[in-house]
Amino acid sequence: MNDKFLSISRRTRSTPFTSRVEASGVKAYSVYNHMLLPTEFVNFEDDYWHLCEHVQVWDVSAERQVEIKGPDAMRLAQLMTPRDISSTQDLQGKYAPLCNEHGGIINDPIMIRHSAERWWLSIADSDVKLWAQGLATGFGLNVEVFEPDVTPLAVQGPKAEELVARLFGESVRDIRFFRGEMLKFQGQVMYVARSGWSKQGGFEIYLNNASLGEALWDKLFELGKDLNVRAGCPNSIERLESGLLSLGNDFDDSNNPFECGLDQYIKLDADIESLSLPALRKLAGQHKKQLMGLFFNQKITIRQPNLTVDGQFVGELTSQCWSPRYRKQLAFAMMNRDYLENHSTIEIEGQIAQISDLHFSVEALIQRGE
Amino acid sequence: MNDKFLSISRRTRSTPFTSRVEASGVKAYSVYNHMLLPTEFVNFEDDYWHLCEHVQVWDVSAERQVEIKGPDAMRLAQLMTPRDISSTQDLQGKYAPLCNEHGGIINDPIMIRHSAERWWLSIADSDVKLWAQGLATGFGLNVEVFEPDVTPLAVQGPKAEELVARLFGESVRDIRFFRGEMLKFQGQVMYVARSGWSKQGGFEIYLNNASLGEALWDKLFELGKDLNVRAGCPNSIERLESGLLSLGNDFDDSNNPFECGLDQYIKLDADIESLSLPALRKLAGQHKKQLMGLFFNQKITIRQPNLTVDGQFVGELTSQCWSPRYRKQLAFAMMNRDYLENHSTIEIEGQIAQISDLHFSVEALIQRGE
Repeated sequence: MNDKFLSISRRTRSTPFTSRVEASGVKAYSVYNHMLLPTEFVNFEDDYWHLCEHVQVWDVSAERQVEIKGPDAMRLAQLMTPRDISSTQDLQGKYAPLCNEHGGIINDPIMIRHSAERWWLSIADSDVKLWAQGLATGFGLNVEVFEPDVTPLAVQGPKAEELVARLFGESVRDIRFFRGEMLKFQGQVMYVARSGWSKQGGFEIYLNNASLGEALWDKLFELGKDLNVRAGCPNSIERLESGLLSLGNDFDDSNNPFECGLDQYIKLDADIESLSLPALRKLAGQHKKQLMGLFFNQKITIRQPNLTVDGQFVGELTSQCWSPRYRKQLAFAMMNRDYLENHSTIEIEGQIAQISDLHFSVEALIQRGE
Repeated sequence: MNDKFLSISRRTRSTPFTSRVEASGVKAYSVYNHMLLPTEFVNFEDDYWHLCEHVQVWDVSAERQVEIKGPDAMRLAQLMTPRDISSTQDLQGKYAPLCNEHGGIINDPIMIRHSAERWWLSIADSDVKLWAQGLATGFGLNVEVFEPDVTPLAVQGPKAEELVARLFGESVRDIRFFRGEMLKFQGQVMYVARSGWSKQGGFEIYLNNASLGEALWDKLFELGKDLNVRAGCPNSIERLESGLLSLGNDFDDSNNPFECGLDQYIKLDADIESLSLPALRKLAGQHKKQLMGLFFNQKITIRQPNLTVDGQFVGELTSQCWSPRYRKQLAFAMMNRDYLENHSTIEIEGQIAQISDLHFSVEALIQRGE
């Protein structure tokens, strides 16, 4: 926790849940997509343990939706990503990097198909709407691109399914990962999906009527009292333990999907019209950097993001936290592949870090004795 | 000042000046273009008086540059704005709303021409780079669009010219408003313009080498000691008194330039290729809302942005502050023009506000006895 305040104004938009977030004792925010994103309630560590054991309600309104609507919606959506989304079903979401024609990552949303002519991009922190609008204008596509009145409220943690079932009914238990249903709250039909920015399980309720925000929040707290429900937020400890990436922290548009370990989402021979695929075909295997996980047995706060060995730059730290569960310092770093060829450790500020692949599971590493 | 902390991470980018801003006792930040923007040092009011009387150094790195470079740079720049920029000279800046084909305002940068083939858009808080890239891709333009290593440092206040002359030489005194020169600091040539987001006068130094940030800051403080130089930042009191608009606070892409009183920048019969001009020709005079200034003789904090009279919505508050100089509460509001036709005041929370046009000068209003 630093000790600087956030100046809040109309530009750092509040959400339909802000009054409840404040009443729940939020201590800190970030600004994400020009909107308040809560980041801390009790403290990172206490928030972390509670998330892993109980159920939390997260105001993730800042996870804005970019709606693409019209006859050319499917075409524009596919142009934006190298992932083949042609087989996506209605109400299904797919994690998909958006890439420009150089292969640089613009954003990494969940792309949710409502119908072939109506998509939502549930975005990380960059103005995808502007990119999509620019492409639509330039290519002369028959689509509208806009930000609808949709503010996701996430319910996360091991008891999330129970709480969401109490609210929307038992059918939610049958929703598979990244699938959703249109469900009703106070007469309003909204998209509810099994998704969320943690690996503790849970749902996201895509509230589509801001005036119901406080009622939805209050209902979840009323129904979840015996489940020990609390206000929460994406938690950096849980995120690093789970290997979840963050645009702007771990990568940006100077990086391509191969550098970020997102190869699995790209079929180079896919027969799709995607802006980035031609560039990515050339880049495949040629990338010089790779996002990796580091872990230390000691608590250490790395002050200098540039990592050097014998005075040579070998990588850049992108995220770090102390894991109270594993008693290890975890970090992500964009490492030179040259270095990785011959090294599985790196010394930073006098401490040795193990280097693992990005999708490291701390538990697996510990079991392997690393 | 609210009491919520800002969570700072790599995503909320720090600047070449952050170490000095922190050492100068910054109390609060906003996040602007994914970057830290200082908002308060001593307190708003003290910062305000000092700005109006002395000279301040502002870290406005968050005022990012979008560089458009290549044979089609001029064409793309003009497509993005309805303002005729064809006569812009090298090293001249022009304030210009960027509008989409519906006339909605995407941003309101200073567009700086380095040459016909190289423009900088010195932007407010939205990812103009993505819009420009989308347009360039869609239209197949021969340009590169990127964010260069440029971090403006503003020197603002009545003694700013003296301080900048001490640093760069007497020639800066001849630079006219929104004009600039290429000047040298420690051997590095950079753009220095008479501009800045206050009406207290001053310059912006477009540092183009991040490694010189601390040296540039320190030199200004060394040279400005007897001028009572201090660290500062865009000040909301000064901004409202001066009638300066803020994207995201006072308007967004749901607004057009007429609603914002920016008519003067648009010649409807200009013979230019601009995406928005066809729509704006139809919108001219048809707009239903108008951004206006409000002022109260009493201190009042308006809690509800929606302004109603007899239960009818008549406008929306966008910004407000207490002016310690005029002992008046100032506000901007997007008002229904229907209401404005018959009213020059509005009662809000039991207090009467005078309504003035946007470019109100509090001094002028007081002289007119309003």
